[in-house]
Amino acid sequence: MKEFIITFLPEKKSISVNRGIDLLTAAIKAGIHIYNSCGGEGVCGRCKVIVKKGKYVTEHRGRVSEKERKKGHVLACRTIPESDIEVLVPEASRLGDIAVLTEEAKAKRLVGLYTPAEKIEEERYKARLKVFKHGPLSTKLFLMLPVPSIDDNSGDLERIFREIRKDRNIPVMQMGLANIKRLPRLLRESNWEVTATLGDRNGTTEVVLIEPGNRSEKNFGVSLDIGTTTIVAYLVDLKSQKVLGARASYNPQVDFGEDVISRIIYAEEARGLEKLHHVVIDTINTLIYSLVKEQDLTLDDITAVMCAGNTTMTHLLLKIDPAYIRKDPYIPAVNFMPVIRAAEVGIKVNPRGLLSCLPSIGSYVGGDIIGGVLASGMDSIKELSLFIDLGTNGEVVIGNKEYFLACSTSAGPCFEGGGLTSGIRARTGAIQSVSIKDNALRIDTIGNTAPQGICGSGIIDILSTFLQHRIIDRSGKIKDNSICTARETDGVREVVIVDRKNSAAERDITINENDIKNVIHSKGAIYTGIEVLLKESGYKKSDLKHVFVAGGLGTALNIRSAINIGLLPDLPEETFEFLGNTSITGARMSILSSEAMDKARAIADKMTYLDLSRSAAFMNNYSAALFLPHTDIDLFPTVKEIV
Amino acid sequence: MKEFIITFLPEKKSISVNRGIDLLTAAIKAGIHIYNSCGGEGVCGRCKVIVKKGKYVTEHRGRVSEKERKKGHVLACRTIPESDIEVLVPEASRLGDIAVLTEEAKAKRLVGLYTPAEKIEEERYKARLKVFKHGPLSTKLFLMLPVPSIDDNSGDLERIFREIRKDRNIPVMQMGLANIKRLPRLLRESNWEVTATLGDRNGTTEVVLIEPGNRSEKNFGVSLDIGTTTIVAYLVDLKSQKVLGARASYNPQVDFGEDVISRIIYAEEARGLEKLHHVVIDTINTLIYSLVKEQDLTLDDITAVMCAGNTTMTHLLLKIDPAYIRKDPYIPAVNFMPVIRAAEVGIKVNPRGLLSCLPSIGSYVGGDIIGGVLASGMDSIKELSLFIDLGTNGEVVIGNKEYFLACSTSAGPCFEGGGLTSGIRARTGAIQSVSIKDNALRIDTIGNTAPQGICGSGIIDILSTFLQHRIIDRSGKIKDNSICTARETDGVREVVIVDRKNSAAERDITINENDIKNVIHSKGAIYTGIEVLLKESGYKKSDLKHVFVAGGLGTALNIRSAINIGLLPDLPEETFEFLGNTSITGARMSILSSEAMDKARAIADKMTYLDLSRSAAFMNNYSAALFLPHTDIDLFPTVKEIV
Repeated sequence: MKEFIITFLPEKKSISVNRGIDLLTAAIKAGIHIYNSCGGEGVCGRCKVIVKKGKYVTEHRGRVSEKERKKGHVLACRTIPESDIEVLVPEASRLGDIAVLTEEAKAKRLVGLYTPAEKIEEERYKARLKVFKHGPLSTKLFLMLPVPSIDDNSGDLERIFREIRKDRNIPVMQMGLANIKRLPRLLRESNWEVTATLGDRNGTTEVVLIEPGNRSEKNFGVSLDIGTTTIVAYLVDLKSQKVLGARASYNPQVDFGEDVISRIIYAEEARGLEKLHHVVIDTINTLIYSLVKEQDLTLDDITAVMCAGNTTMTHLLLKIDPAYIRKDPYIPAVNFMPVIRAAEVGIKVNPRGLLSCLPSIGSYVGGDIIGGVLASGMDSIKELSLFIDLGTNGEVVIGNKEYFLACSTSAGPCFEGGGLTSGIRARTGAIQSVSIKDNALRIDTIGNTAPQGICGSGIIDILSTFLQHRIIDRSGKIKDNSICTARETDGVREVVIVDRKNSAAERDITINENDIKNVIHSKGAIYTGIEVLLKESGYKKSDLKHVFVAGGLGTALNIRSAINIGLLPDLPEETFEFLGNTSITGARMSILSSEAMDKARAIADKMTYLDLSRSAAFMNNYSAALFLPHTDIDLFPTVKEIV
Repeated sequence: MKEFIITFLPEKKSISVNRGIDLLTAAIKAGIHIYNSCGGEGVCGRCKVIVKKGKYVTEHRGRVSEKERKKGHVLACRTIPESDIEVLVPEASRLGDIAVLTEEAKAKRLVGLYTPAEKIEEERYKARLKVFKHGPLSTKLFLMLPVPSIDDNSGDLERIFREIRKDRNIPVMQMGLANIKRLPRLLRESNWEVTATLGDRNGTTEVVLIEPGNRSEKNFGVSLDIGTTTIVAYLVDLKSQKVLGARASYNPQVDFGEDVISRIIYAEEARGLEKLHHVVIDTINTLIYSLVKEQDLTLDDITAVMCAGNTTMTHLLLKIDPAYIRKDPYIPAVNFMPVIRAAEVGIKVNPRGLLSCLPSIGSYVGGDIIGGVLASGMDSIKELSLFIDLGTNGEVVIGNKEYFLACSTSAGPCFEGGGLTSGIRARTGAIQSVSIKDNALRIDTIGNTAPQGICGSGIIDILSTFLQHRIIDRSGKIKDNSICTARETDGVREVVIVDRKNSAAERDITINENDIKNVIHSKGAIYTGIEVLLKESGYKKSDLKHVFVAGGLGTALNIRSAINIGLLPDLPEETFEFLGNTSITGARMSILSSEAMDKARAIADKMTYLDLSRSAAFMNNYSAALFLPHTDIDLFPTVKEIV
């Protein structure tokens, strides 16, 4: 079969593919991450690329304008080369790399993906730290063992156990055969001075590792937030409890489907599960390796990994078949994962290092949410609190010290910058807020650089501002106005936020009526979720004393704007706290404190899942919420004054 | 380098070896087990073979008579071929195969290696069974899981744990990743009816295995006694508690050294540990496979293995370096082995099956002795008891409910038939007792077949009878007498027990003064060990209310004879019980009852080791014991009347 060479620009990465292979598939093979929200169906129009040289056949599907077509713009998923070809992948189509935060970077307050949220997390973390005793997943203990004699002749293993027990109250202790085998020589060569790494393993303590000499100062772990879209890794000093470095990367599983359901379906294909598993493990290994290198450590210094992820992500991480998560009655294989060796799933740290996962409560509320509730501290608040994670699934949790009720709203990715014409993740260059001054739209980007697109907090702020200034009406229709250019492109009304010449995206940054409809559907789902949870637990809105908002929305969220568009309930602003990425915070707390991990398990035990797809109340209320802020404006008295 | 073909007769097994390789080494390579008590030093004279064809150079070292030399008799270890060669390995030089006992064989009361001892064990076992609750190392539980629904939506793993907990009080339960991965499909394909195998693992319960359907009736384990010389395996029905089959084999490690010390030295050589480990594992696998085949089971049906062995055997089984066992201050790597997966050491049973080892208390008192004390029941006797294991090490334990004091006497292998001119293991054809009638020596062999040699109980009975009839004097010198032929061969006085024509060994069965000296040294060491233990714990002989004798001596032990030669203290005969192989009994009890295993651990915790090589009392008393029965005849009042 004839093969063509496809070269991706600007990196000049070439790959040879068989005739008939589309450009999107070729890009995936070449390791170039392109948006494909619709899974290569030619629907979303996110995989736009520009053919610079070579022949091809393509299908435009209305997502590529006439003008663009002439310049070689095509949808990668709908384009098949007919010769060797050169393709430019514009920044706007790339999932791209996420800014990496080192301690130094954080110190300089460089604006990146997680910076301000991190600051919030840091403060909250320190407060919670006072609650939870330091007791990491793995602890190093320096032992100066008494040299054996005829009178003190216990075995090598028993000697170690005995000395450890002098320091700790550990009734059940064990050591694997591999370590026992190393003992006789190791103990004698190190003159009976060794460092034991103790791992907290499913109700027992395992001596995970024995090293010669005093290594107790060097004990590190990695906390992971494995999101559907983004993977975040923290390198944590398990002794000082400090975060030494943070790295983030897109979850490369997006190449196989953007949401969990499409990945579960992909996992059912031949070798599908294996592929999904391997790409996430490879990414984790790359992140860990970079973090370790940055700090001049070795992989052997990492003895613990704690992971927070939704139920599907956790299944894929562990290579457990997720098939039944999406099949009625939606049962995961496991909610409370036992602590295993990280090497068992291919994570490259110390070969004896442990991997623990925050528990899930069911198919649609996972360890990321349990970690979030843990990080919010709402489990220790007597009054009623609400936790909202504005991720792809839009999970909502209501509860107090006694109980939790959770639901998942399938909000869609728009608050993470997905599913919007000009949406991007919260990264440098993302428009995160707007204002109107002198009858003109002013934008504020993360890092104050030229705008690339609009992130979650940006779209919320834009819609709120537009609503106030009648640029859109309450149904989301775009009106002619004196502030922004409103126009029709390919039959769809749109507003230009930043024109091409002021944009770093090589095109106009716009919002059209489809985008607005997307946001309205998302915010409507979340708001209705909140209503249903309140109703189910017999409370009313005014009973809510705390509302915790989490997610990768941006570096700050304008709570007022979120209320204005009807995403958040109309409550006093002091009720709200924006927490940023609580999944990674939960993972960090749990790797540093077994008490926190126990608390996470207790939270999971106390949490009930409410399936909205079977809730009549949700169906009834949902359509009423598809208005800005709501069909029933009386639910939003403070907004009523504005609009 | 020139190679020669060596053919071993009568099996006609050929092997090609390089010039310069001796016949013993060649035999080991060919898988032919030849006695080599001295480790190939040309000292013991046990590796005698007959060259039938071919050239060779040899060195006789006084162990081969002039007459034998002419017929081609040589020491295999001292003989190097000079051409292709044919060598007959006589029965007397072969370690041989041990009779196998099946249930059927036992039912027919066939006389074999362990039969009557087994009977004793069986009775004792049943009595002890009432003490220990049935609770095997692994248990199968049939679960009819409620089919999940929206209202009962716990995860697959949590559902299994929940249902198991309805039946059992198990706070800490775990399952490995490999099993979790199989759950989703397995549970649904088996219509939620599965069998869980629960393993008792270091203070927690592991769900070792999940099988479709009801397999709870089929749960089997293997108990092993890994002796320095012999390996015994029992196939145990973990549900009915019955022993379904028993097999025994020589420990092929004898090829690398007959006692533990020479094996430890061998283990220090390049790949030595690996070789010692592999030969024992191979033998265990062969034994298990035969047992399983015999009962029409599969290896997968075996979910638990329990092993009793001395400390060195346990180290070699697990491939743990035993080097420091023999180096001052004699510290083993491990006394209390954690429960691991049998597959980790290469034992072929169910890949998820567990391996547990009875605990040791130090380098020279191992799991075989702990198992023996457990089997004897002396841990639940208020009065003072004594336990003697007449194996190569001759361990002695004194104690009661409160404490135990143990020593190891390095008695040597003579009570196992080793180190004697005509000594053989207790097997069919072994002379196990004698009597004198009509002024002639009458012999009794195991299985009533033509005599092959003399086993442990035989040598004890012979010396006692000879002493009574003045065929030997109290120093062990052979006297001219009217009953047996006493003669001198190669300068050593000997008595003919059975002449060549009545023997199945193709030679005279004899006992010479060196043999008698060997026995006197062995019995003297054990007796002195008993004296020292009594003295150290502040008791006198008459305080002993029970004396338990264990070991592979024969099918029955004449206690009177053992007292007469001064091996056992002069106490009323009802004080004594001969228990046979208590190591395997202990292993059987422990695989069937976690209570028994807990008891074994408690016994080990309560036991103190006394090092006789540092005991002045031992040194002082030992030489006085090198007389029949003793220098101080007043210690043996009932014997005084006889001699």
